Amino acid sequence: MGTILIYEIMGTAMLTLLGCGVVANHALAKTGGHGGGPLMIHWGWGLGVFAGVWAAYKTGAHLNPAVTVGLLVSGADEYAKGIPITVGTTLTYFAAEMIGAFLGAVLVWLAYRNHYDQTEDQATVLGTFSTAPGIRSYGWNVVTEVIGTFVLVFIILNFGNTPVDLGPLAVALLVVGIGASLGGPTGYAINPARDLGPRLAHAVLPIKGKGGSDWGYSWVPIVGPLIGAIIAGLVVLMGF
Amino acid sequence: MGTILIYEIMGTAMLTLLGCGVVANHALAKTGGHGGGPLMIHWGWGLGVFAGVWAAYKTGAHLNPAVTVGLLVSGADEYAKGIPITVGTTLTYFAAEMIGAFLGAVLVWLAYRNHYDQTEDQATVLGTFSTAPGIRSYGWNVVTEVIGTFVLVFIILNFGNTPVDLGPLAVALLVVGIGASLGGPTGYAINPARDLGPRLAHAVLPIKGKGGSDWGYSWVPIVGPLIGAIIAGLVVLMGF
Amino acid sequence: MGTILIYEIMGTAMLTLLGCGVVANHALAKTGGHGGGPLMIHWGWGLGVFAGVWAAYKTGAHLNPAVTVGLLVSGADEYAKGIPITVGTTLTYFAAEMIGAFLGAVLVWLAYRNHYDQTEDQATVLGTFSTAPGIRSYGWNVVTEVIGTFVLVFIILNFGNTPVDLGPLAVALLVVGIGASLGGPTGYAINPARDLGPRLAHAVLPIKGKGGSDWGYSWVPIVGPLIGAIIAGLVVLMGF
Amino acid sequence: MGTILIYEIMGTAMLTLLGCGVVANHALAKTGGHGGGPLMIHWGWGLGVFAGVWAAYKTGAHLNPAVTVGLLVSGADEYAKGIPITVGTTLTYFAAEMIGAFLGAVLVWLAYRNHYDQTEDQATVLGTFSTAPGIRSYGWNVVTEVIGTFVLVFIILNFGNTPVDLGPLAVALLVVGIGASLGGPTGYAINPARDLGPRLAHAVLPIKGKGGSDWGYSWVPIVGPLIGAIIAGLVVLMGF
Repeated sequence: MGTILIYEIMGTAMLTLLGCGVVANHALAKTGGHGGGPLMIHWGWGLGVFAGVWAAYKTGAHLNPAVTVGLLVSGADEYAKGIPITVGTTLTYFAAEMIGAFLGAVLVWLAYRNHYDQTEDQATVLGTFSTAPGIRSYGWNVVTEVIGTFVLVFIILNFGNTPVDLGPLAVALLVVGIGASLGGPTGYAINPARDLGPRLAHAVLPIKGKGGSDWGYSWVPIVGPLIGAIIAGLVVLMGF
Repeated sequence: MGTILIYEIMGTAMLTLLGCGVVANHALAKTGGHGGGPLMIHWGWGLGVFAGVWAAYKTGAHLNPAVTVGLLVSGADEYAKGIPITVGTTLTYFAAEMIGAFLGAVLVWLAYRNHYDQTEDQATVLGTFSTAPGIRSYGWNVVTEVIGTFVLVFIILNFGNTPVDLGPLAVALLVVGIGASLGGPTGYAINPARDLGPRLAHAVLPIKGKGGSDWGYSWVPIVGPLIGAIIAGLVVLMGF
Repeated sequence: MGTILIYEIMGTAMLTLLGCGVVANHALAKTGGHGGGPLMIHWGWGLGVFAGVWAAYKTGAHLNPAVTVGLLVSGADEYAKGIPITVGTTLTYFAAEMIGAFLGAVLVWLAYRNHYDQTEDQATVLGTFSTAPGIRSYGWNVVTEVIGTFVLVFIILNFGNTPVDLGPLAVALLVVGIGASLGGPTGYAINPARDLGPRLAHAVLPIKGKGGSDWGYSWVPIVGPLIGAIIAGLVVLMGF
Repeated sequence: MGTILIYEIMGTAMLTLLGCGVVANHALAKTGGHGGGPLMIHWGWGLGVFAGVWAAYKTGAHLNPAVTVGLLVSGADEYAKGIPITVGTTLTYFAAEMIGAFLGAVLVWLAYRNHYDQTEDQATVLGTFSTAPGIRSYGWNVVTEVIGTFVLVFIILNFGNTPVDLGPLAVALLVVGIGASLGGPTGYAINPARDLGPRLAHAVLPIKGKGGSDWGYSWVPIVGPLIGAIIAGLVVLMGF
């Protein structure tokens, strides 16, 4: 369990470091990549997964409670080579993913420290930590997250089906695609830890002039991805 | 035939979910990727194919009647490992591709529900479902679709010729390239199901304030791709 | 020699079809990708090479007289598996590359026919066929083409040195990189056929309201790439 | 040592030729890629590494003193197949990386000669050679470089841990990701040679109307990356 904890923390920290980092680069004042645009953001998140997979390869690089849940529901034999599926390992994955996501966001804040200090819009600052919907409508926002996460988890569960193994590149490109295509309404959390960890970091860190952390929305990127992951796991369990 | 149906529906649904989804993200009101631009759209479609290939790998991941026709004309031995080329399997592929393309577009509408409600321009809404020419001129529009589909099907039929197997990545990048280079005049249907399925969805769905589904143009992205696929199949059949 | 002719014509036609096509998509009036920008153009050319390599894999997919010359000078054993290096094969490669590049440009004109008719700026039209310098200065323009082509041919000649074979993807990405980094001053011909073939097509085709084909510049994208290729071949010949 | 010198000079020259080149294409007057944007720049640098890895594969393609230091600290057995870790080889890597980075920048200046002559803003010209912070604050600028270089070196040291070998593509994409996500505040030197070599070139070359070379900042992209590399090496040494 120490192994799961260390590797998944490191991997998920890589994910949110590069992921929240690319949003900071796009959105904060006076950065080199200011206004780099949606496609830059999608590549940043995709390559955050890419880096995270290498860091956490030994434990299967879940990096995401939705992936853990999807594997659990799908009837997989183990979480990664040598790691059995038990209550203990499951909870350890969840804990590690949350801690890692939190730490990655703290590192983003350190890397962009001066730029946070010079950014006055509170929604912009929060947007570099957690997701927010373009149009707030909790029910439909959940639907969007369910669909996006279903694609993520279902395709990941199918990666073994081709003779070609692209490894970390496959999931990286999948995330680029989901971001480009299904990220429009809610900012594609598709990962409860990716949203909650950085949101906690936003709440805790002494960010100059920060506003609230929008806890009213915070359950959407938890519930939506978990439902999507469960559906994906069930489809695989039924023999697809 | 149940296998073909299930896997090709799932794969083609993935294709239009991510493909029509990226156009919705670019074009609809208040999305995170609003105005993300042509290159984002090309990557979205390419990675839609990427995801679709994994979902439908067991049945060869045609995802496109033009691919089915190209294989048929080229004199291939089978449609996929263990799936013979018969009238029945051919029609099953066609049906599954159409159903999948329709369902993927329905999912896009669900994912972007609120954004459709707040988008008033009818052509913008239709443009997230089916293709439309920049300059309407049916004859030349067919020519463009013939050329684009020839490239798609001809190169796919050549994928086995190199010792390097990039698998789903190869066809994904091919679609990005065709979109960037030959998509300008007609929006690169290069796939009858990709256009007709979502067009039917547009006609059927209760989209707020929607306009007509432009059925006058709808034969172009069917006839053009089929001609292009037949030419590609014939070139391969002649021993290229 | 018939094999070389057929495959290299097909491959080089794919290259200029997608390559000149992406410039047409970016530059011509009323296209879907209008104003798609430099990075879209670089991907279009890179993926044109990608498609061309599959089409011409049997003959080594030179697609470029500079590659043929680089192999010749480098002391390679053969041009491709089973194709010896002789005066005859060398001239056949040159002829096929020129014919293919010409035909690809003709196909672009067909695919974008209506958009050419509605584009009035003569330099824009010519720019979708052949390259032109941002600042006309023949000597320095040659220098830029020498450097760009050296990178292309030198790295291609080194592709065999790693245990990883990315095949068509490697050269595709290399072309994206050269376009992004060294394409600024002259539009990165880095291939005499890629420039001369389409320029001939521009001169011959009945394009509405077209201007001259800028023959005064036409020697630069021939001489520069050949010098760059010879230097790359010599460096490899010397044992690098 | 002659081998290290030749190959690392060639590889690092490729890196800064394509890397500084893409900034020149984006920033200088009258280039084809003018205003191509952040994502074009990230791909240019990533593909500069891509090309550099092939050129220097025989010596492990460090291309970066931070990579050399990271390997040293991590307790690696050798710098590359057959190259032991000694004081002599270490210093030879450093020297070759510096010389190569300098030469690559000189080639950029030759390739973009006329465009440099017509660019009047001195900071723009310097920015095509070396990095500069968006907000000058030496301490925090060091922090940003430490974090970015840690990601680079730590993931490179983990490349062997997956069964999938993407070779030069893996590190290329990693650099694209770090540029997109962590490049905002300081322009991601993450490589002392990449910054100091071109800065020396800027100081030495007879660039028309150039300003100072900002030596006051020059220590940041040396110290930051070395600290980041040492931390990455130590983490691996401790058994991660």
